[in-house]
Amino acid sequence: MRKLQVTYLPGETTVHVPEGTSLFNAAHWAGLPIESTCGGRGTCGKCKVRVLEGAADPTPSDHRHLLAAEIVEGWRLSCRCEVVEDTRAEVPRLMRAPKAATMGVGRFVLLEPNVRKLVLDLSAPSLEDARSHAGRLRDALVEEGLEVQADAPVLRTLAGIAGESERRVTATVVGDRLVEVEPGDTSARMFGASVDLGTTTVVATLVDLVTGAATAVASTLNGQARYGADVIARMGHAMQGGEEALEELRQAALDTVNGLLEEVCGNAAVDPSEIYEVVLVGNATMLHLFLGVEPRSIALAPFVATFLEPLDLSAREARLRIHPRGRVALFPSIGAYVGADIVADVVATGLAREPRMRLLVDVGTNGEIVCGNVDRVAATAAPAGPAFEGGQILHGMRASEGAIEGVRLGEDVRLQVIGGVEPRGICGSGLVDVVAQLRLSGLLKENGILASPEEVPGHPLSAHLVERDGVRAFALTGDIVLTQLDVRELQSAKGAIATGIEVAMDHLGLEPEDLEEVLLAGAFGTYINPESARVLGLVPPVPVERIKAVGNTASEGAKMALTSFREREVAFEQLPKMIEYVELSGAEDFNERFIRNLAFPSLEAVRA
Amino acid sequence: MRKLQVTYLPGETTVHVPEGTSLFNAAHWAGLPIESTCGGRGTCGKCKVRVLEGAADPTPSDHRHLLAAEIVEGWRLSCRCEVVEDTRAEVPRLMRAPKAATMGVGRFVLLEPNVRKLVLDLSAPSLEDARSHAGRLRDALVEEGLEVQADAPVLRTLAGIAGESERRVTATVVGDRLVEVEPGDTSARMFGASVDLGTTTVVATLVDLVTGAATAVASTLNGQARYGADVIARMGHAMQGGEEALEELRQAALDTVNGLLEEVCGNAAVDPSEIYEVVLVGNATMLHLFLGVEPRSIALAPFVATFLEPLDLSAREARLRIHPRGRVALFPSIGAYVGADIVADVVATGLAREPRMRLLVDVGTNGEIVCGNVDRVAATAAPAGPAFEGGQILHGMRASEGAIEGVRLGEDVRLQVIGGVEPRGICGSGLVDVVAQLRLSGLLKENGILASPEEVPGHPLSAHLVERDGVRAFALTGDIVLTQLDVRELQSAKGAIATGIEVAMDHLGLEPEDLEEVLLAGAFGTYINPESARVLGLVPPVPVERIKAVGNTASEGAKMALTSFREREVAFEQLPKMIEYVELSGAEDFNERFIRNLAFPSLEAVRA
Repeated sequence: MRKLQVTYLPGETTVHVPEGTSLFNAAHWAGLPIESTCGGRGTCGKCKVRVLEGAADPTPSDHRHLLAAEIVEGWRLSCRCEVVEDTRAEVPRLMRAPKAATMGVGRFVLLEPNVRKLVLDLSAPSLEDARSHAGRLRDALVEEGLEVQADAPVLRTLAGIAGESERRVTATVVGDRLVEVEPGDTSARMFGASVDLGTTTVVATLVDLVTGAATAVASTLNGQARYGADVIARMGHAMQGGEEALEELRQAALDTVNGLLEEVCGNAAVDPSEIYEVVLVGNATMLHLFLGVEPRSIALAPFVATFLEPLDLSAREARLRIHPRGRVALFPSIGAYVGADIVADVVATGLAREPRMRLLVDVGTNGEIVCGNVDRVAATAAPAGPAFEGGQILHGMRASEGAIEGVRLGEDVRLQVIGGVEPRGICGSGLVDVVAQLRLSGLLKENGILASPEEVPGHPLSAHLVERDGVRAFALTGDIVLTQLDVRELQSAKGAIATGIEVAMDHLGLEPEDLEEVLLAGAFGTYINPESARVLGLVPPVPVERIKAVGNTASEGAKMALTSFREREVAFEQLPKMIEYVELSGAEDFNERFIRNLAFPSLEAVRA
Repeated sequence: MRKLQVTYLPGETTVHVPEGTSLFNAAHWAGLPIESTCGGRGTCGKCKVRVLEGAADPTPSDHRHLLAAEIVEGWRLSCRCEVVEDTRAEVPRLMRAPKAATMGVGRFVLLEPNVRKLVLDLSAPSLEDARSHAGRLRDALVEEGLEVQADAPVLRTLAGIAGESERRVTATVVGDRLVEVEPGDTSARMFGASVDLGTTTVVATLVDLVTGAATAVASTLNGQARYGADVIARMGHAMQGGEEALEELRQAALDTVNGLLEEVCGNAAVDPSEIYEVVLVGNATMLHLFLGVEPRSIALAPFVATFLEPLDLSAREARLRIHPRGRVALFPSIGAYVGADIVADVVATGLAREPRMRLLVDVGTNGEIVCGNVDRVAATAAPAGPAFEGGQILHGMRASEGAIEGVRLGEDVRLQVIGGVEPRGICGSGLVDVVAQLRLSGLLKENGILASPEEVPGHPLSAHLVERDGVRAFALTGDIVLTQLDVRELQSAKGAIATGIEVAMDHLGLEPEDLEEVLLAGAFGTYINPESARVLGLVPPVPVERIKAVGNTASEGAKMALTSFREREVAFEQLPKMIEYVELSGAEDFNERFIRNLAFPSLEAVRA
């Protein structure tokens, strides 16, 4: 994709954007917000800039909103003006100090939600001014710079309040849809919710769209869990059970999300009908099941989604219990296994917006990998299998009470157990830790073979080297052991992820030393020991201080799109075009790479 | 509104259009269709013309669809190019002979419905081409020149058929919405319906959108009749009965329309789900009740509608039983009492498209009046009261079996009775006839006073001049008489209509001799005797051969908008802007005019 340079004066801010990007969006990309009240729809006329160099044919919107003399002088509505060659433009100073907040990973976000409430003083109809109520309202909104569509239910409401003596009304607009008209001024109450529909955990955040504050957060297990622990199992259920199973899965997700919405509303004394928009993220399978779209083609080769595109649904169509005419926006996905959650991670971390070269990994059954910077971004998915979630591991378990989540090997074995109780098994982060510690203590070879007690006679932990069912094992407690087979499972899982990282980085021609940061996203990323990840070769050999757990950035990204139309534009329109999807199984030398990546890095390399 | 001249070469066709009209629509207005497969949405790139004179800034769509060299030579997509000064443009010859039919009153209509079926051969997904099913479909539609939105239900369908081996699918698009995807080629089956939701009679026409033929027509009484005979009574019911009454009225209209749709489908062996679009017309009150929108403000001064704008609804929202994702388009209205039916009349007659100066009158409880030509059009509404429907007339009745519908007075009284049975009363056309005949036979004075037998001693009909309840009357049969009070009622009704016509014509500075045609629309217009209407002064004194009954042009106009996106553009976008609404009660001298119009024209004037 050809990139063009845009320079904004007076600050000489420059940005490189694909041909066809609007000057408005390019400026946002450069961190330079241009005034707008219509959200870049060409209707408010406030985003004008003066083009000094570069082609900028005037559009019909320019003729509508600008004076002929302004057009001659090069003024254009930046939201309508597409960049077709290198351009220089002058941006007027912002007329107002926008409300803003820091969100995600140090991202500065302007509070300009897609939901708006406009308080309008409507003139009374008369014989001389017999405009319809809808026309009168529409004209008042046009004066505010908005051109909206009204549907039948809003017309019914409008007819009801049009006879009242009070002519002050509040119009609630979501995007370009008029969803509510209320008598009087209700502008102080306006809420939205972001939802991270994870395979395991679902998180809902209630956001006050007047202040930008998160007023309540709640999370719970995804109710689909009873139909299978992971996406593969759930897709299997949907495929075997037909329509009925699909509806079960859909309803389970809906019950979970609606329950959380009820909970956050209850906690914040907000009526669900005061939520006008929900922004939802999740992996592609979760989004398919959320809409009742059969996920078969995600499950079977060649693994394509039915939809990846962002969707804008009515609350009724989505079956969410918010304002009855509210809207539900689904983040776009990049591929069947690089989901909307990853796009939200990219938004929250600003990975595609900054010059720093970064790698973001969400480790799970399916490892999702994105690397790049403002110039280029590549993404891929690596089938890690269930090892990181405790699957296929003799004493493996999910990260819940009794799980060994941290291990330190020195003169003895020290365990960190969730809930501080007697250990019951090992979860993913514990598995990564113990294997890394075994490597560092010299009990596990580069090729993944556990030492026998005979090989390390003087080692303080040699008594822990045991046999279980005829294979070598390392005893963490009297009962709980890590077997040679478990190590093999972990090798296979980390080999897949490492191969994915390698292929994505190769796609951009990157070496580990190019990475300024390695970001571990998602629940697993929060608990994993960065040093251990590095020792295993799960992440590239970068200095450990460059490896950062960023937490639930998917939820943060959704919140950003909820509170800022500019961030939403990036997430919904620009990132799907910009992120280059690399198909892992399409890499010619995938098998050789994978086999090479089964081995652990040499201790010299790790300690370097 | 400033009008600009556009001249199309090679034919030197000229047209005057308001500033901002697209070259594409202006050409259609001039009867010069420009090629297009996307319906003027800027996506197919087929409507290019070469602008020879006049400003034509290239738009982003031009850059997308045209070569740079073409843009330099003046080529532009005509659907994106707005006329801002007098313009000359060269139009390439049509590449195909479009299907066309004559509809309405001699209108030549190209068969290009808003509903389209596209048969697509989709490529199979692969590891190399992992586009989503929706993306693959969208790309195939873009190649056909269409950019569409897909919603969740279509995605569910798509997931279901994407796994099938057959990769040929048929996509059904209504406007810019994808409403269906089916395996195989179903393009031979595509239907729409036009509905004229009259206060009294409802007509549904099933149209084969492949051939443009009307395959079945059915009509019935509006089921709302049980809540009141006319719009005033029904609005009263809605206002007194609240939500419940409003829902009753809505449901009655829906039952009527759905019943007719079922009937036409049954007659034509069409499944209701094969109807993808309904275009609906009716007066503003009918459209409000159809959507369950409280009509109170239409009923009460200052008489404004809640909506006049055209609406595009889902079949589900409109509660019509057609394809579940089908669309329902409502014609726009001009004022609370100049309804969508009149807009459809204007479409069907081409009144606003031809240089001929014409007057169109729809006589009823509310008289609707439009006059003008391609340059200007004025409309008004006249409150005629119920006389034309038999109301407030001693022996008045609706036009049903037993109604005297025609009267001829000579040596004796000759009656034409509906159904050829014993007469039971007089309907509107009979009323107009008898009063006109009384005028012509010298039994009724210019001021509306019936002669006494003493005043016309030798008249062959003097024996019919009787008294009834102390007032003069004319006996049509032994029982059925027309009283002096009946004549007064008729005078009042015709006075209102005549005043409306006068005010509208004055608005455009027209004299009767300027009128090349007087069109009588609607059921009443079909049965009224043009000569009688002229004798009463119900229509201006034009030669009788210029008075034409045009029948149910509302239904025809709806059908035209159903079969031609160009006609729909005229009806939905251009006519509401062009038609100047004249508020009758706003005319300063309304009362004087009305009183003057109570009198009948002199017989000299009528015979001149």
